[in-house]
Amino acid sequence: MRDFVIIAHKALTTGDFSLNDLPGSAGRMDILCRCINSCLFLSHDLRRDVQVHLVLLGEPEPGKIIRFDSEHVRYLNPDERSAGSLIKKALQKTAGEYEARSTPGVFIRSGNLGTLLHEFKEVGRRLIYLHEDGEDVRELSDLTNNAVFILGDHMGVTEEEEQLIEEHGAKTISLGPIPLHADHCIILINNEIDRNLSGTSQ
Amino acid sequence: MRDFVIIAHKALTTGDFSLNDLPGSAGRMDILCRCINSCLFLSHDLRRDVQVHLVLLGEPEPGKIIRFDSEHVRYLNPDERSAGSLIKKALQKTAGEYEARSTPGVFIRSGNLGTLLHEFKEVGRRLIYLHEDGEDVRELSDLTNNAVFILGDHMGVTEEEEQLIEEHGAKTISLGPIPLHADHCIILINNEIDRNLSGTSQ
Repeated sequence: MRDFVIIAHKALTTGDFSLNDLPGSAGRMDILCRCINSCLFLSHDLRRDVQVHLVLLGEPEPGKIIRFDSEHVRYLNPDERSAGSLIKKALQKTAGEYEARSTPGVFIRSGNLGTLLHEFKEVGRRLIYLHEDGEDVRELSDLTNNAVFILGDHMGVTEEEEQLIEEHGAKTISLGPIPLHADHCIILINNEIDRNLSGTSQ
Repeated sequence: MRDFVIIAHKALTTGDFSLNDLPGSAGRMDILCRCINSCLFLSHDLRRDVQVHLVLLGEPEPGKIIRFDSEHVRYLNPDERSAGSLIKKALQKTAGEYEARSTPGVFIRSGNLGTLLHEFKEVGRRLIYLHEDGEDVRELSDLTNNAVFILGDHMGVTEEEEQLIEEHGAKTISLGPIPLHADHCIILINNEIDRNLSGTSQ
């Protein structure tokens, strides 16, 4: 399994937003929708070995985690509204300590970045923080499906979050010479792992 | 300059569509919107050396070319609706033999794939057709800003179009072991060129 964690500092934590205004009143929910697309879609297919964890920190109830499990997800098309609609449905459920399923393959609970980092660390997963100051991904030929990738949104990652990520032993890697949007970074990561798994990375 | 040509077999050739239904009644216009995003956006910036040419082949007037010039484009945000809105405005102009400007950096005219291939060939540009059967892009260390990349939409590229592309001397390259959406391919190409230009491709 490969996992992606996306920290969304402004994304609304209520389902009470319009699909016609994902970037505005929904708190840059458009970024999360594109990240879902980048994580899960292949040409005429979905990946089967990917999970996406959206950490929503916007109002009115900061600290919710929505998980998309590629193996079971349904009713998802590549466009932003489609992912937005599944996020909206998830946010209409009550988020408690344990996950609640909103639609097939989509789950919600309360939690934050620390919750996820702790859980992944507990089961021995390899944590990778994507940042332009890191080691070039092309130097890491052993990057496969065991890794968990942590990405920020348009606001990046706060100092506090970065410290938390470092404390959990994450390795920092970069994807090229120019800083890119989170959804673009995910495409590059997926390609790098696809290449490593098929032996075409060099 | 790097140029991307995207062939959109079903994309509507009238501005009379709803931004709330880009994938459906607009003829998979969502694909073109994501391609615009992939071609042009950097983190908190736009690329300045890219042009996108959308070849629209849907009803009611098949054969229109919309060009986005990254150096001059304005009013463009990363979300699908934003690109969709600029495409819609372009399609509200009359498309003749010569380009008409709809908004800053966005132009429309009549034409098709043959028109573009002919023009690029005339000025000595290097044509590259993206297809999973091609040579691996990582074998081409000389890929820089002179290239023109040709991509299909969800329907791929027809046999007739493929023949036309071959007749114009395009080289076929692939981006990895798994077929991907056009907008995902563009991310990989941009990264490869960025790396070649900065000397970090290996």
